[in-house]
Order: sequence, then structure tokens, then C-alpha cells
Amino acid sequence: MTQGPSADPGVIDLLGLLAYAELGSFFRLADDAGLAPSLRTKGQLAGLAAAEQNHYQALRGRLVELGVDPEMAMAPFVGPLDSWNERTEPQSWLESLVKTYVGEGIAGDFYRKVAALADEDTRVLVEDVLAETERAEFVAEQVRAALEEDPRLAGRLSLWARRLVGEALSQAQAVAVDRPRLAALLARDEKVAEKAKKAGDSGLGDLAAVSRMFASLTEGHAARLTAMGLAE
Amino acid sequence: MTQGPSADPGVIDLLGLLAYAELGSFFRLADDAGLAPSLRTKGQLAGLAAAEQNHYQALRGRLVELGVDPEMAMAPFVGPLDSWNERTEPQSWLESLVKTYVGEGIAGDFYRKVAALADEDTRVLVEDVLAETERAEFVAEQVRAALEEDPRLAGRLSLWARRLVGEALSQAQAVAVDRPRLAALLARDEKVAEKAKKAGDSGLGDLAAVSRMFASLTEGHAARLTAMGLAE
Repeated sequence: MTQGPSADPGVIDLLGLLAYAELGSFFRLADDAGLAPSLRTKGQLAGLAAAEQNHYQALRGRLVELGVDPEMAMAPFVGPLDSWNERTEPQSWLESLVKTYVGEGIAGDFYRKVAALADEDTRVLVEDVLAETERAEFVAEQVRAALEEDPRLAGRLSLWARRLVGEALSQAQAVAVDRPRLAALLARDEKVAEKAKKAGDSGLGDLAAVSRMFASLTEGHAARLTAMGLAE
Repeated sequence: MTQGPSADPGVIDLLGLLAYAELGSFFRLADDAGLAPSLRTKGQLAGLAAAEQNHYQALRGRLVELGVDPEMAMAPFVGPLDSWNERTEPQSWLESLVKTYVGEGIAGDFYRKVAALADEDTRVLVEDVLAETERAEFVAEQVRAALEEDPRLAGRLSLWARRLVGEALSQAQAVAVDRPRLAALLARDEKVAEKAKKAGDSGLGDLAAVSRMFASLTEGHAARLTAMGLAE
């Protein structure tokens, strides 16, 4: 991998955010695994946690390669991600699984969109990291199985999923305000699209573009709810 | 890998014990990582946890290969290992690190000795798993650094290390009583040695041989204490 255009400050923000998010996913899945009802599921969830840790190492390595202090790059995102985790503390194993699935899903859609706007090396790295995250499907299966046994859980878990998304969007908006360079990267795609459509600058700021992007992130959410056997 | 002599019930016990121990190490290191004082150390400890999880997968895979239900093979060891963990609950991050280092060390010596008595495939697998565990040296460094900053901690941590070993030997003795097939495997080496020395059966039971093996396990412990900057 080469340095080249990857030293874009927006890309460094993206890698720092993703690295800290993967470290957080490791801890969340390790917690889930500790609570798992069977030894077999415990081992499977611990395996998912280890995979997230490998992603973290890959992203951290890329930051080192770019000559950036990886902990410095992660630091701005510790607050918002920790806040999201604290504001959405699961009260049961099922709530924890839904959080993992919804969280990974929204994050995945987000990183994919942003990576498409970054340099080639970053795009490939992020896509590699996310491809493995597909293993989260295992989590959806666990939720479906639990709902088949007790369908009355569906209502409460659907509300829980909605709250998870709401809190995530709120933290993401805060990040966009604090990190204009990252917001500019997010808005890049939007701007190009706007220009092509209207053949002129729309005059909208990056933040509005970012908001529209966030709105589009909730589209995949409905499909994920269905995969878990939940309604919107 | 072939089935062959690996279906020895003592070897299945060994693999089940080691697999559950590695799963436990994963959770212990993930907990340590969660408590780590810096983002950098957090990531490093999470990396060690992920390595233990890979070992768990390898051992579990070997049990599946041998046509054994891996969770059934682990089940007899859940109680003793969980008891050890409950009886040695760390009260601080440093105690937790010492527990990890002492625990990994004794367990490593034990598995190496037993693996030498098992079939070739098992021996190679166990040695591969343990080679990577050497990364635990990182943990010793963390303890040393903390002791350099505050040497008064050494006395309390030395007592803590002694208690960890005592509790481990006590649980190991219980396992040896409950699992005669594993004890027989442990005693295999002893018996051969006895025979060569005395040119006759010493008449000692497997349990006495196992006790002598456990006694020899504490030898490496002194070196590990020194590595952490602690006294015996």
C-alpha cells in the first residue's frame, strides 16, 4: 500500500472512527458471548469477537502505514461511540444481540458508502473488513430462533431497535459537526450528484448532505429488522 | 490429520480441557482489555484475547475431526475452571494481569507435558497453540512497568500470585480424581520413568504420579514471578 492520497484528513478520520468502532464491537461481542446460554453459542460469539479484533488490527496497521498515530486518530470518536454504548445499555441477552446486529448493519452501510469516496487502498481495506462482518448473520438467526419460541418478545425488541437507530443517528450528527473534514468526505458524493442533477452548486452545506446520507442509512435497517423477524 | 490413536479418551479429555481453558482465557483477556488504562494497551490486550479464541477454534476443530461432540468434551471441565475463576476474582487491573500471566504460564507447562504423552497430531496442535501464547510476555512487561512506578505493590501481588497457584493446584487435583482417563494419560510418563529406574512397578497409583507432576509445574512459576518483577 502506498501513502499517496490516503493522507486525506477525512480518510484518516474515517479509519480512526472505523478502528475504534471495531474495537468496541469486539468488546460488545465478547460481552454477548459471556452471556450466551450454551457453551456452543458462547464459542461462536467469541469467534465473531475475535474477527472484529482482526479488523481493528488491520485498520490500525493502515493508520501506522500512513504515518499517523493510530490512537490519536481514534481519540475524537471515543466519546461519541462510548456515549452510544452507554445510552443503549442492553437489559437482556436478546437486546444485546439486536444491538449487535443493528449496530453492525448501520455501521457497515455507512463505512461502505464512505469508503467508496476514499482512495483505492482505503476502499479495498474497508471492504475486506466488512465482508467478514457478514458473519453477523449468525446473530440474526439467534434472534429469529428466540422469537419463534416466544413471539410476544417482538414488540419490545422492535422498539429497542428503533431506539438504537435514533441514538446512533444522533451521535453521528454530533461527529459530523465536530469533524468537518470527515463531513466533507461524506458530502463529496452528494455534491457530485447534486451538480450533475442541477448543473450548478446547490448552495447546501456539507451538513445537509451528511443528513441526507444518514437518512438513506435507515433504508437497510428495515431489511435487517425483517431478517431478525421484527417489524418496523 | 488422522483419527488413529487420537481417540484415546485421555486425549479427548485433554483437548476438551484445553479448549475450555482457551475460551476462558479469551474472556479473561477481553475483561483485562476493557480495564486497560490506555487505548493502545486496550487494543493490544484485545489482540491477545483474539489469539486465544483462534486457539479455541483449532482445538474445537480437532475434537470435531475425532468425531467427538466438542461441547460434551469440554463439559467436565467447565465446573473446575469456572471455580478457579470465581475463587480468584481480581480486585484491580494489576491483579488481573498477574492472574493472566500466572494462569497462562502454569497451564502452558501443563499442556506441554501432557501433549508430549499424546499422539503426534495432538502434540503438534497443542504446541502450535502454546507457541502463540508466548505473546503473554507483553503482560509481564505491563506488570514490571507498574512495579517500577510503585515498588510497594510487589508484596501484595506476590501473595496474590501464590494464591493463584494454590487454587489452580487444588482444582487440578479435583479434575485428576474425577477424570481417571486423563490422570492415566498424565501418569504414563511417570510410569515409564519409574520402570526404567527401578526395573519394576512401583505400585504407586496414577494419582500419586499426577501429584508429582503438579509439584513440578510450580518450578516454572518462580521464573515467571521474576519476569514480572515479583519475589516468591
